[in-house]
Amino acid sequence: MRIVTVRVDGAERWGVLDDNNRVRLGVGSLIDALGDDGALPAPTDETVALDTVTLLAPIPEPRRNVMCLGLNYADHAAEASRASGKETRLPEHPVVFTKATTAVTGPGSEILLEPDVTEQLDWEAELAFVIGRGGRHIQREHALDHVFGYTIVNDLSARDIQFRHKQFFLGKSLEGACPMGPWITTADAIADPQTLDIRCRVNGELKQHSNTSNMLFGVAEIIAVLSGIMRLLPGDVIATGTPDGVGFARNPPEYLRAGDEVECEIAGLGVLRNRFV
Amino acid sequence: MRIVTVRVDGAERWGVLDDNNRVRLGVGSLIDALGDDGALPAPTDETVALDTVTLLAPIPEPRRNVMCLGLNYADHAAEASRASGKETRLPEHPVVFTKATTAVTGPGSEILLEPDVTEQLDWEAELAFVIGRGGRHIQREHALDHVFGYTIVNDLSARDIQFRHKQFFLGKSLEGACPMGPWITTADAIADPQTLDIRCRVNGELKQHSNTSNMLFGVAEIIAVLSGIMRLLPGDVIATGTPDGVGFARNPPEYLRAGDEVECEIAGLGVLRNRFV
Repeated sequence: MRIVTVRVDGAERWGVLDDNNRVRLGVGSLIDALGDDGALPAPTDETVALDTVTLLAPIPEPRRNVMCLGLNYADHAAEASRASGKETRLPEHPVVFTKATTAVTGPGSEILLEPDVTEQLDWEAELAFVIGRGGRHIQREHALDHVFGYTIVNDLSARDIQFRHKQFFLGKSLEGACPMGPWITTADAIADPQTLDIRCRVNGELKQHSNTSNMLFGVAEIIAVLSGIMRLLPGDVIATGTPDGVGFARNPPEYLRAGDEVECEIAGLGVLRNRFV
Repeated sequence: MRIVTVRVDGAERWGVLDDNNRVRLGVGSLIDALGDDGALPAPTDETVALDTVTLLAPIPEPRRNVMCLGLNYADHAAEASRASGKETRLPEHPVVFTKATTAVTGPGSEILLEPDVTEQLDWEAELAFVIGRGGRHIQREHALDHVFGYTIVNDLSARDIQFRHKQFFLGKSLEGACPMGPWITTADAIADPQTLDIRCRVNGELKQHSNTSNMLFGVAEIIAVLSGIMRLLPGDVIATGTPDGVGFARNPPEYLRAGDEVECEIAGLGVLRNRFV
């Protein structure tokens, strides 16, 4: 099942997208509708055509910061080390930082570049998952039962800010730096989240191409480690890291410029497309 | 003016604490009451004695993660480097990470130690401020106009987790690892936030004693830098870093144990006291 959030008659509503691109609308926002048990109520009988409403990020205003894994693909850890002139050391434990809620933007949105703020905005296609039932000390073998669904996040990163301020938070938190969507595919539709092809194209040119089987810490492991330390909540969004092929590790480095279009694609989850202006 | 949040008849309500320890109650939670202009409506005529209700953190459930400065006092940066066997390098730009919303706990609360999760929980007394009017590109000279008020945060840090996972987020996000309070002193009552004595006592013994004049990046500078990169929102809580005297930098290192009591005190802002069980 594909869960969308749309703006219809000025209000934000969640809904179920069918194969004919019609949305069966639910009541209110997804984050408010999602119960403590991670289940959604049934939608209403009201339907709209997707092309008559505005598609937003599936969770436009998360209840707290989006959590993100850093250096979670070996090839990306290697290219990042190479670009920094350091020896490659793979993380032995998940590296986790957050993106501010105000970074979230929807599929198809135009993202305003601010050259006075950064001239090094970089792409990072990532599989993200949304927590359904929260909790502490979730065991790895039951962890996937706590996933409401999967979506795509482009973990846009201002490299100058990220490295200047040491901790990653600020360089990851520019307005519009967290495109999310185009929808959430519910967990029941994804047999194994560690088998998904992931691609990023910039202006149609393939920049990243990997498979989630290459993640160092998979979805179940991430849930087990995080919930061992902190409480996970329904609606938490966790992005699982990006494979190699980012801009700053290229020779010469490449960054996003006005007019560029970035497409992040994950098999079974759709295409998340944004233009930069 | 001192703004508290209390639980009264099962509901969370903000209120104004007077000099006779009576609370004039407002309607609903502080975060919902705080307008986009950073102003609070007038409270109701209803009053209760503080000792008949439960005092909570002034913002028990922030709308997003608490932002925190790292290494923002030279003496603390030096002791942290020494403890890690590294040369001291003061940050040239603010180092910012976040604490999960589920870490927030109130003044007087008992904090459950989880020895299976960490054996290295450490104290960090910090001046925190709450954003009133949000925005982008706030100039340093007008920045203090955007502060709703000041409070105390104990930025409890699980050192083993913090260093094992590289980025600070996880080691700072245990449940109960963000005591906040005892109240918010509104900005009009604090002539200059960079002149405040700050102390931390563990079981009555003075562990940290400094003054906010020693911060590397002051409140106005932090607001200017952060809002230059990301959007600040009404109700954002930003903790400004801790002075020297933390446990892990001591010889031998000291960590919190069951039965310990930590008091964080800042001149004019009260005492934030918690016991560990």
